[in-house]
Amino acid sequence: MNADIPRILGIDPGLRVTGFGLIEMHGRQLVYVASGCIKSNDKASLPDRIKTLFEGISEVIATYRPNQAAVEKVFVNVNPQSTLLLGQARGAAISALVRAGLPVAEYTALQTKQAVVGHGKAAKEQVQDMVVRLLNLPGAPTADAADALACAIAHAHGGQGLGTMATAGYRVRGGRLIE
Amino acid sequence: MNADIPRILGIDPGLRVTGFGLIEMHGRQLVYVASGCIKSNDKASLPDRIKTLFEGISEVIATYRPNQAAVEKVFVNVNPQSTLLLGQARGAAISALVRAGLPVAEYTALQTKQAVVGHGKAAKEQVQDMVVRLLNLPGAPTADAADALACAIAHAHGGQGLGTMATAGYRVRGGRLIE
Repeated sequence: MNADIPRILGIDPGLRVTGFGLIEMHGRQLVYVASGCIKSNDKASLPDRIKTLFEGISEVIATYRPNQAAVEKVFVNVNPQSTLLLGQARGAAISALVRAGLPVAEYTALQTKQAVVGHGKAAKEQVQDMVVRLLNLPGAPTADAADALACAIAHAHGGQGLGTMATAGYRVRGGRLIE
Repeated sequence: MNADIPRILGIDPGLRVTGFGLIEMHGRQLVYVASGCIKSNDKASLPDRIKTLFEGISEVIATYRPNQAAVEKVFVNVNPQSTLLLGQARGAAISALVRAGLPVAEYTALQTKQAVVGHGKAAKEQVQDMVVRLLNLPGAPTADAADALACAIAHAHGGQGLGTMATAGYRVRGGRLIE
């Protein structure tokens, strides 16, 4: 890996499933590296689940050696206990990133959707579709991995929406893709 | 340090202030080791604050080499955003503990208060006072450090309340201290 090439690790944190996605910026072109998700056993104790997430993300970092990280800001849930659990998962994810010395940026779901779809009210499926198109993927990643990739894309765009970024196999102008 | 002697690190997690307290169990006697708190700058970014907490707890572990950990279960706050922040702080704290390979137990504030005061409705000052008496301290630790020590004491008691544990300089019978 060339240290001059930004390699961004995007994270969509969750206690049950944490999505991750890695992209590289080659000049103004985004290139897919890897994506997937880390699942914790909901029958395990909370410390054990935190351990699974922390170690899983640490392993992703050790394997793919990103030099930047972007984490989706999570929603407050209607259920306060769920909010508390989600917060703990996000704390574990950020801990793994900062422990590895990665600079960590944060993006709201709104910013992420604006970056990949062009507006903030996109449905999950639209995000998945656009991630596939923007990164020229052969198939659709899972929803969690797609959200993580979208967060990495938002970071590559400087959190500024589609703008004038080029992507693998496509060019973007005025928020529209042109082949 | 003798690895056979349980050395318990208690943690009272919080984003602004995380209290910590270490005690040793010498047979049935509890001995104070250290306590204090880790503060994060509320003007810093959330990832930077998570980093401060994670590294602070890691440093406490490296310095005092506990072999067990106990973390207070946190309350759901009336403010959902506060709940989310508190959750993230707790996730960072547990990450630092599991990363160090420590077994992590969890206790509610109710269990902690029962363990040190004998009932679950004790005020913060009562907890502080009883921690001072149970560990035979020369002065009162801060409220956050006292809560962390109380959590470690609850763990030493097996989360079972005062029971028949002896403490440094004191013996306990039927929930009352007897000198």
